[in-house]
Amino acid sequence: MDKLYVIKIGGNIIDDEEKLDQFLSAFSSISEKRILVHGGGKLATELAQKLAIPQQMIQGRRVTDLETLKLVTMVYGGWINKTIVARLQSKGVNALGLTGADAGIIKAHKRIAGEADYGFAGDVDEVNAPLLFEFLERGLTPVVAPITHDGRGQLLNTNADTIANSIAQAFSSRAEIHLIYCFEKEGVLGNIHDEASVIPQINSDNYHQLVDAGAIAGGMIPKIQNAIAAIDAGVSQVSIGKAENLHLIISGKSGTSIS
Amino acid sequence: MDKLYVIKIGGNIIDDEEKLDQFLSAFSSISEKRILVHGGGKLATELAQKLAIPQQMIQGRRVTDLETLKLVTMVYGGWINKTIVARLQSKGVNALGLTGADAGIIKAHKRIAGEADYGFAGDVDEVNAPLLFEFLERGLTPVVAPITHDGRGQLLNTNADTIANSIAQAFSSRAEIHLIYCFEKEGVLGNIHDEASVIPQINSDNYHQLVDAGAIAGGMIPKIQNAIAAIDAGVSQVSIGKAENLHLIISGKSGTSIS
Repeated sequence: MDKLYVIKIGGNIIDDEEKLDQFLSAFSSISEKRILVHGGGKLATELAQKLAIPQQMIQGRRVTDLETLKLVTMVYGGWINKTIVARLQSKGVNALGLTGADAGIIKAHKRIAGEADYGFAGDVDEVNAPLLFEFLERGLTPVVAPITHDGRGQLLNTNADTIANSIAQAFSSRAEIHLIYCFEKEGVLGNIHDEASVIPQINSDNYHQLVDAGAIAGGMIPKIQNAIAAIDAGVSQVSIGKAENLHLIISGKSGTSIS
Repeated sequence: MDKLYVIKIGGNIIDDEEKLDQFLSAFSSISEKRILVHGGGKLATELAQKLAIPQQMIQGRRVTDLETLKLVTMVYGGWINKTIVARLQSKGVNALGLTGADAGIIKAHKRIAGEADYGFAGDVDEVNAPLLFEFLERGLTPVVAPITHDGRGQLLNTNADTIANSIAQAFSSRAEIHLIYCFEKEGVLGNIHDEASVIPQINSDNYHQLVDAGAIAGGMIPKIQNAIAAIDAGVSQVSIGKAENLHLIISGKSGTSIS
């Protein structure tokens, strides 16, 4: 069975020219198949401010009105995606930038959550893994922006973590998947103030203990729950760690591994 | 030999919601292989004004500084490209949005013109026709934004007419190509004030006559010269006409045909 890495990076890497370049070099040197999923960065926030697009929140979640959808499609699907693609091309990787609309690779639906209207925010329905797999077989490396579509002509703003997770799950019957979430810390920390306190392994046995002890808290809870869901769906391994340590995460020497 | 349509649309269609939708429906109903190339529109100019990005011109040509490159990559490669892709998906066309950097389909170099520095403006070197052909064979319809790359990590702003022309030429040995430039008029007009004065046919025989008579003048001269160059390079047919008349242009009942 083929090995496939699905790697997600966020704003902390995208916004740092030098770190991004180092990460993309490390990414380029992976000899197995890989898909890169990226989130946004400061540019979207900066532009929203300059263009005076108000940021509306409902229960801590951003509402994607039409102006915000335009903005994120421009920034994520345009500038960030194409910058990464061009950079990877220069490193010998035949990168192909995609939103979910391109080649219909990710279909989603407008989020409906009780009375709340999150605007053009999309929840993933389906990933076209066979076509993504063909791209990989052809030597192309998909670089996926966090924008999807509903198949009826509407673009939707979709969480990049969710996209990475959905792609990983969709491939689980075709390849041995290692899903890697890069974020700003060394891994899931036992003590949030101590970067050396990385918990090397989380599984369904110690998960509840760690939640009870407060080591897994706040925004980390849904992250780990999604990771466990991916494992349950057949993903071989999920890791969380620092983009700078990509190769160490791959070899199991850095980050938190969820299985 | 396969038939392939390479069709270019510009701002006059992109900026008009209804006309764009009608055009995309007509485009969708073409049963042969097709590639769509799009230019920009008002949004780029509007955003440049709102963000106070100064527009510098040298000898009538826009200079692409870094801020302008960001802007056009966001608007052309992001919003316009993905809006068209999502719209085509809803019409049953498996559209794949591409800049020249994606899958390395169009390599260019930074324009050097004597002493003048046009910034990040790119002139096309090479189109990866074999890979575009594979996409077409796979049932995908490329939608190409006027952004290229130099292979060394640099994105470049490239004229959409030139991109359409380069793609058509690159395919000329593989398919019977009909290159169609859509613009705001019915065709090349004998009398600029009379939409009924379309010159149905231009060839190397009557071209110089038409230039001498003033019927082909100004910005139309390089357009026709490029069309003739495409024919010389093996493109079967080049047409210029109104996007609204796409099917009439295809059947030779509207627009100007250059051969």
